[in-house]
Amino acid sequence: MNYFTHLNCPKCSSTYEKEKPVNLCKCGSPLLAEYDLEKARNFVKESLQGRENNMWRYRELLPVVDTENIISLGEGFTPIFPFQSLGRELGLRNLFCKDEGLNPTGSFKARGAAAGISRVLELGIKEIAMPTAGNAGGAWASYGARAGIKTHIAMPLDAPEITKTECAVAGAEVYLVRGNIADAGKIIGEGAKKYGWFEVSTLKEPYRIEGKKTMGFEIFEQMKWDPPDYIFYPTGGGVGIIGIWKAIKEMEQIGWIEGEKKPKMVAVQAEGCAPIVKAWETGKEFADPWEDPHTLAAGIRVPRALGDFLVLQALRESGGAALAVSDEDILGAMEKTARSEGMFICPEGAANIAALEKMVARGQINPEDRVLLLNTGAGIKYAEVLKYGFPVLEKTARL
Amino acid sequence: MNYFTHLNCPKCSSTYEKEKPVNLCKCGSPLLAEYDLEKARNFVKESLQGRENNMWRYRELLPVVDTENIISLGEGFTPIFPFQSLGRELGLRNLFCKDEGLNPTGSFKARGAAAGISRVLELGIKEIAMPTAGNAGGAWASYGARAGIKTHIAMPLDAPEITKTECAVAGAEVYLVRGNIADAGKIIGEGAKKYGWFEVSTLKEPYRIEGKKTMGFEIFEQMKWDPPDYIFYPTGGGVGIIGIWKAIKEMEQIGWIEGEKKPKMVAVQAEGCAPIVKAWETGKEFADPWEDPHTLAAGIRVPRALGDFLVLQALRESGGAALAVSDEDILGAMEKTARSEGMFICPEGAANIAALEKMVARGQINPEDRVLLLNTGAGIKYAEVLKYGFPVLEKTARL
Repeated sequence: MNYFTHLNCPKCSSTYEKEKPVNLCKCGSPLLAEYDLEKARNFVKESLQGRENNMWRYRELLPVVDTENIISLGEGFTPIFPFQSLGRELGLRNLFCKDEGLNPTGSFKARGAAAGISRVLELGIKEIAMPTAGNAGGAWASYGARAGIKTHIAMPLDAPEITKTECAVAGAEVYLVRGNIADAGKIIGEGAKKYGWFEVSTLKEPYRIEGKKTMGFEIFEQMKWDPPDYIFYPTGGGVGIIGIWKAIKEMEQIGWIEGEKKPKMVAVQAEGCAPIVKAWETGKEFADPWEDPHTLAAGIRVPRALGDFLVLQALRESGGAALAVSDEDILGAMEKTARSEGMFICPEGAANIAALEKMVARGQINPEDRVLLLNTGAGIKYAEVLKYGFPVLEKTARL
Repeated sequence: MNYFTHLNCPKCSSTYEKEKPVNLCKCGSPLLAEYDLEKARNFVKESLQGRENNMWRYRELLPVVDTENIISLGEGFTPIFPFQSLGRELGLRNLFCKDEGLNPTGSFKARGAAAGISRVLELGIKEIAMPTAGNAGGAWASYGARAGIKTHIAMPLDAPEITKTECAVAGAEVYLVRGNIADAGKIIGEGAKKYGWFEVSTLKEPYRIEGKKTMGFEIFEQMKWDPPDYIFYPTGGGVGIIGIWKAIKEMEQIGWIEGEKKPKMVAVQAEGCAPIVKAWETGKEFADPWEDPHTLAAGIRVPRALGDFLVLQALRESGGAALAVSDEDILGAMEKTARSEGMFICPEGAANIAALEKMVARGQINPEDRVLLLNTGAGIKYAEVLKYGFPVLEKTARL
């Protein structure tokens, strides 16, 4: 049973049938997958028990019509565990982290790629193209390889080295661009027009977000339907925040949650690239493109997000917040988290910790608040941002 | 309920109580944890349903007495999935891979570290030391940090760069050694004597193997008690192969499996460091140390394994095999697996693929045989062994 019905434009309400490949709405907005949520009330949450430990446990609310088309490497259902030491240090009694670094390809991008590539296969598309800050490319190249889909990927020259190798080993065509992800996007866009590649850039195809939304289902299910007061999310393209908020609305409509207080969504950006924060602070509905974006957290170095208005809408509707942190604080938080919690988180995940510290210091978060941090990827993919020196010993040395 | 009773020497049958820290037996052999397997028959396999999706679902048969001492980052219960493309290419209808790269710290070493560090905490030890090829250090440093244990780690100068950073970011003291893991081990051994650090080198403490053995429980449970005919395992210290075989024997004794045919264990090594293969081929009970070990697969560059006789015993008892493959074949298998299955496996995991190809070519594995490959870690941690060149585009370029 699958309840996916069609695609809908959140801006102009145009609809599109699900049987044909489509990128953006004719009005330029991203499209969202819609489900028959009335019928989906038959998909009761009790039926989740005993299902596979990956995101396909929610397949009824995912856009893949024929389960034969599912391309999976075991993505999703990542653990949530307590951050007791960090919580103590911050005076928070209930601090949790969901570790998306335990996904295939080492980041939450695996969810989007699994949903997206499964649909690419289902729709009969043979060749895809995308710009990436690094992790998304690694994920789409890997899932693409598993599905037998040819992948073209452009990334900034200074994207993490590992992600370049990750794309290449999977057989993707990789182009490095002297510029940022928006520059890479332009090159890919023109290439796609010229060669007929299907563009799978962030929100330029409607299914990546469906994979990401499973984080929302999981947070509720894994926390036994007693969700956190805050969800901190490092925001680049913002697909995760849009996806989680979409999941929460769908869960309300199918009766999985009823009248419960919903988590406040907190969008975290870097001071060197904070278009969403700026729009939030000035009360705008859309974000202005950020000039000269820079931050070592490659995944949130996104000067312009197609889904900016959807992110800002999720923040408003949830009563959330948006704030930016410095690269220095990000590096400090990576080390602090590894030393106190044993978890080597990515710079984007570390931005959450730095932001949380700020909000606690300002009295915006209270000791009894339940806070969930999303670590979007494995720190090992970004080891190059940390520099350590080590003593070198001869093999006859003694300590 | 926990059935751990004491430690036993598999060589001279001496026993040791579980309340005190101990390294090797007085006879020099590694020690093994023993359980009251008669009583453990009350631990029926049906009770596993609905338990946590990590290795602690088998806590009754793990050595941590008080669950309060469990240090977890979500390790274990990694997915097993079909390798259909590779299987087709090799003419195998039932080829599977268990992806241990989805463990915290990106390798199966997380299992051993979780069990080992939990026991270190339980026994009140404050400071530990170990040599490592890379991944084990990353795992023990991380779990150690989470438990508040100080960690000293020595590794070969040419260990993967990421694993060095991984240890350092977690606050471990890291020493690089101009030599191999055995040389690093000597330096650590002397340091431990001098400073009173507790040595947690491979099999020098008895609990790492208990964490590793959960791979055996999982293979049976996840394959619905219909195990594969062959399990391929890249063999350095050999703890995994010993652990999986120990798990199989324990499952027999507590009635989880009865008279089923057991998997044949296949130990895979590199041609540049193959002490177990040499011992196997010459019918020896112990392996001679390997002179001048070299292979790009750092995790199996182990010239001498304390548990050599236990590995060889598992191969004999299971009717298995041991064989070595070249670095060239390892690199080829990494690429082939990424391109056909979308999985970036580690060089050690790739050695399995190369070995399987050999056995198929020799007619030792048949089309209907069910084969499980253990990918022991994430390829992203070894990205440096692959070298790709990429076109660099100006941001105004067109494809």
